[in-house]
Amino acid sequence: MPYLAADLGGTKLALGLFSDDLDLLWKEKILLEKRQGQEVGNLITERLSGIIADLESRNEGVQAMGISVPGIYHEARKTVWAPNIPGWENYPLPEEIKQISKNIPFAVQSDRACYITAEVAMGKAKDCTDAVFIAVGTGIGAGIISGGKILQGADGIAGAIGWMALEKPYNLKFAPCGCFESSASGDGIARLALEKIKEDQNYAGALKPISQDRLAAHHIFDAFNQHDRIAVAVVQHCVEAWGMALANVVSLLNPQMVIFGGGVFGPAARWLPDIVDEAAKWAQPVSMKRVAVTVSSLGSDAGLIGAACVAKQKTKPISSI
Amino acid sequence: MPYLAADLGGTKLALGLFSDDLDLLWKEKILLEKRQGQEVGNLITERLSGIIADLESRNEGVQAMGISVPGIYHEARKTVWAPNIPGWENYPLPEEIKQISKNIPFAVQSDRACYITAEVAMGKAKDCTDAVFIAVGTGIGAGIISGGKILQGADGIAGAIGWMALEKPYNLKFAPCGCFESSASGDGIARLALEKIKEDQNYAGALKPISQDRLAAHHIFDAFNQHDRIAVAVVQHCVEAWGMALANVVSLLNPQMVIFGGGVFGPAARWLPDIVDEAAKWAQPVSMKRVAVTVSSLGSDAGLIGAACVAKQKTKPISSI
Repeated sequence: MPYLAADLGGTKLALGLFSDDLDLLWKEKILLEKRQGQEVGNLITERLSGIIADLESRNEGVQAMGISVPGIYHEARKTVWAPNIPGWENYPLPEEIKQISKNIPFAVQSDRACYITAEVAMGKAKDCTDAVFIAVGTGIGAGIISGGKILQGADGIAGAIGWMALEKPYNLKFAPCGCFESSASGDGIARLALEKIKEDQNYAGALKPISQDRLAAHHIFDAFNQHDRIAVAVVQHCVEAWGMALANVVSLLNPQMVIFGGGVFGPAARWLPDIVDEAAKWAQPVSMKRVAVTVSSLGSDAGLIGAACVAKQKTKPISSI
Repeated sequence: MPYLAADLGGTKLALGLFSDDLDLLWKEKILLEKRQGQEVGNLITERLSGIIADLESRNEGVQAMGISVPGIYHEARKTVWAPNIPGWENYPLPEEIKQISKNIPFAVQSDRACYITAEVAMGKAKDCTDAVFIAVGTGIGAGIISGGKILQGADGIAGAIGWMALEKPYNLKFAPCGCFESSASGDGIARLALEKIKEDQNYAGALKPISQDRLAAHHIFDAFNQHDRIAVAVVQHCVEAWGMALANVVSLLNPQMVIFGGGVFGPAARWLPDIVDEAAKWAQPVSMKRVAVTVSSLGSDAGLIGAACVAKQKTKPISSI
């Protein structure tokens, strides 16, 4: 019987069926479009129950379900906080899934915990007991495995690395999403570029004609290739910030491996050697020598694979995955 | 039968006997004076075997022994790295203790792990599953408990928080001991004051007459009371650094409690409200609201009590301590 995985993102829902060995058997993606709050919950439960019914009509079943959510899953309250989905401040997703689950065991987990679970189960961190996934997408979060266990924190909010303090003095622009995330996430890169364009009166480069609300990280990466001075400065800033954050994770957690992933890594993977060089200046030197730093190879399926791992953990001990 | 605990510091060795309930029954302190390398190892094994023999002569025994070391204990290699004790780069302390142990079970643990163990067993973090001890003494290190377990990292070096990157750009003065520790540990406070005295040509305050090699953190704290401008600037810098580091620990680990301790907290405890205010600007807001921040009440016995807890853990499950 397959595992059914769902990966909810800020803009889309991915669903997949996985074999017992976690091979991806089938996958679909649905854009959220303008869905909010309850509509997003309905989309998830309708698709899950549809897939369960499809399998039942062929006399097949689902072994377990795993659902990755873009934010935090509060285990104690059984609610989801997903900052990019309006109305999902305290969303009772597990209760809704339970109603359509037909007693199939299921688990909800934060996307960052799913990413590192996927990496340890079948990605680059295979068999690591201590590993960190730094997800740089719209926002920044970290999934942490320490001593073979997911580090959840007291309220399930551990890994909020986007809030890392990396440069003083404090600036009010850090308030909405944290110092690190404010200028080194996908959105942060665009924000920083806009800031620098405003400051640089004489700038007439490739980024200038792009309208403020369209400018995105990929424009900056493209402009970097043309040696655009704003793009070069933004990338230098990000390499420094990513390196410092990497250093802090290494010094504090002494992991065997740190994996950069998310939409930005991706294109920013080419600066990995520079990021490691930056980190080596700051980090505890023994821990830095021992850590392997790499980029995820699970790509955009990392959340879906992680959700499948989480489903499998509902039926098998972690060590057997 | 009592537990025998030893707490090795950079300048002294403390020994203690503890009851089954971890009440301190007897304690002694011995200055290391000029002892180095093997001489320090000899001091430990001679005192431990002396105490064991004393008890035996009274027909008593030792249930288990715990030894706290000022640095890192490498479990896999069974060696100690203690940066403040010359010749203790890879010191085989467990092998030497084994020879005098008369089969009494014993465990060696890093001081920072001992501190947080003591706090969770019988200090302010009693019954916490997620707590951090930030030890600010000569250097800075953190003991971390997450999900009820000591966070060791892959090589037992986790918690090297003194290396935390908190201000850019990188400065070569961070190289010997890390950005955070370079100016916010006991030694760092004195270093920063000296730097500021050198820069401030017109300064003729309370710190000026103190010779460079005598100036210590307590001089700066005393001068602060007289509104000395160098002392005030150094304390402001430290409050900001301690607050940022606290914020990073809170965002990354989502602990129930963070405890400041070590020789500096101590006198710096009076700035705890300012440190918490600073941290609140930077940290993940939900985690910051949930965390309690306090100062250790175990004082200079924290390492010794922690070593006793570690001894007790050799004979009892952690949860019973």
